[in-house]
Amino acid sequence: MVEIAHLTFDPDALGVSKGHLIVPKGVDSEALSLPAFCCNKGDGPKLLITGGNHGDEPQGPIIARRLIEWLPAEQTCGSVIVVPEINPSAVKAFTRNNPVDRKNLNRVFPGRGDGSASERIADAISSVFLPRTETVIDLHSFGILWDCAPSVIMHPVSDADLMDKMIRLGEAFRLPVTLVWQHPDTDGMFDTLAQNRGKVLVCTELGGGTAKNEDLAIYELGVRNALIGLGLIEGEVEQPVFQQRKSSRTLETLLADELCSPTQGIFEPSCSILDEVKKGDLLGVVHCMSSLSAPIKILAPSTSVIYAIRSGGHVEADEAVVQLARPITRK
Amino acid sequence: MVEIAHLTFDPDALGVSKGHLIVPKGVDSEALSLPAFCCNKGDGPKLLITGGNHGDEPQGPIIARRLIEWLPAEQTCGSVIVVPEINPSAVKAFTRNNPVDRKNLNRVFPGRGDGSASERIADAISSVFLPRTETVIDLHSFGILWDCAPSVIMHPVSDADLMDKMIRLGEAFRLPVTLVWQHPDTDGMFDTLAQNRGKVLVCTELGGGTAKNEDLAIYELGVRNALIGLGLIEGEVEQPVFQQRKSSRTLETLLADELCSPTQGIFEPSCSILDEVKKGDLLGVVHCMSSLSAPIKILAPSTSVIYAIRSGGHVEADEAVVQLARPITRK
Repeated sequence: MVEIAHLTFDPDALGVSKGHLIVPKGVDSEALSLPAFCCNKGDGPKLLITGGNHGDEPQGPIIARRLIEWLPAEQTCGSVIVVPEINPSAVKAFTRNNPVDRKNLNRVFPGRGDGSASERIADAISSVFLPRTETVIDLHSFGILWDCAPSVIMHPVSDADLMDKMIRLGEAFRLPVTLVWQHPDTDGMFDTLAQNRGKVLVCTELGGGTAKNEDLAIYELGVRNALIGLGLIEGEVEQPVFQQRKSSRTLETLLADELCSPTQGIFEPSCSILDEVKKGDLLGVVHCMSSLSAPIKILAPSTSVIYAIRSGGHVEADEAVVQLARPITRK
Repeated sequence: MVEIAHLTFDPDALGVSKGHLIVPKGVDSEALSLPAFCCNKGDGPKLLITGGNHGDEPQGPIIARRLIEWLPAEQTCGSVIVVPEINPSAVKAFTRNNPVDRKNLNRVFPGRGDGSASERIADAISSVFLPRTETVIDLHSFGILWDCAPSVIMHPVSDADLMDKMIRLGEAFRLPVTLVWQHPDTDGMFDTLAQNRGKVLVCTELGGGTAKNEDLAIYELGVRNALIGLGLIEGEVEQPVFQQRKSSRTLETLLADELCSPTQGIFEPSCSILDEVKKGDLLGVVHCMSSLSAPIKILAPSTSVIYAIRSGGHVEADEAVVQLARPITRK
């Protein structure tokens, strides 16, 4: 008998349930037991929160586990499922991709029950949780090579009503940036699958790869604000303070807003996240590793905002080093 | 004929020289050409600055290359040699250890001319540069898994006069922390070799593994202050502003100040670098990956200062997660 993905608890039971999502074994690994939480307070919004999709983004799992602590006392209605680490092998290895099959979990959705380790995880999430949810918050950050503005992102979809709901949910976090991101590579993303099924899915980008205590408070506040916005908890929305400022902006990033290094070398950032730059401003330099020749400058191609920037270290030619953004042009 | 490590330029020539340190080939790799710089303005202090000893600490190479830009115009006397990346294979791979022989370069000094790749680099640095220097600044940071106070560290040596000189040089940076660190594992360090030869060597720890533009300015200012303190350049010492504060403290860290995780799991920091904590204060928690059970608390064993703390992510049992420090007890 072929085992299929299933839960060890009943998410339809009222109250708090804790248990595991069982991802069946396959040719490349044993079965996985992913800790999962459900707080079901009856009628109301149905939310799924996932963390640890990529393993080098520790903020998501931490925020998800913090949420589990206080949600039961505060949630007033609806159902919230939380899975803090959907990609545990990658989290343990602190790698973006799953070390078992070397695949990027966020490019194999909806997955396959008879596929490789990442494909079986994607299948389990897609088949067990997605049908019972209306809204998904997938907790990402930018990983260890980047500094990034605390933000909520969504990729453009053709359904204007769905797009509007995603932007509104993103803005409900009150994080410094809500970003509509034209991304060149969305096939197999959890986002794409969920949106194709009419679900409202947003991703957080909770900074770079560093989870500091003071920053975790900002991220947690953002998620709390979103839960208030969804009507799942009561309370006052509170604007997080980031870089001594209380501000939230809705931006978009276009395909040309990803700037790549023209050569391999050591990238040195010359500006900071949320800086406003104009055409010709110096964004960073790349130092040749083989000589002490003058570094190659990377200049701003247009007036824009620094959304994310590599935080130093070696880069290859054509590797992304700066992600720009700009005020959104609403249609 | 066996090739030995050598320079492609004459560091005794007055003025600025740029070229390479040639590390001969060996059984595991071809010869390396490490870009090197010398500014020789005649009599005066003889300083060596090295970066990229560990490959996942990008701040050192960047600061070293910035220094090369302005030093020729500002240096008034003496000789300064700068080698921005002494471990280029590790820098390219963004790994602590050298991927060629998997060794930690900073544990194989003085190295061997007929040894593995790391041992040949150590031999080249030791034989070519160390005899012609009195003072060494080895530019480190804490790597991608940690947040760390911008600091200068030195390990205790029995020679009280040398120890005093190292602390005075450390304090000359005016970074937030100068730290005398009782380290359990100093064999093979560049520090240990240099100090055994009577040289004044300090290591910077320029934050964690993230090189942000605003932080790079602090690190560069620290190095500039040190050069003023050494009498190599003229100018006013300027106290860096870090976390909105201008302050410098001299601390020590004892063997028992390294706190380890009691179990494997996801570490969540509950305090920040430079926080002052007292016995029993919560420093962080470790979340079990296999269940949603209550996390395990890590408490402060004594009144102390948070010098460095893991910035989240998976930790193994007995892996260090917090490095404490305390006001130094001068003998």
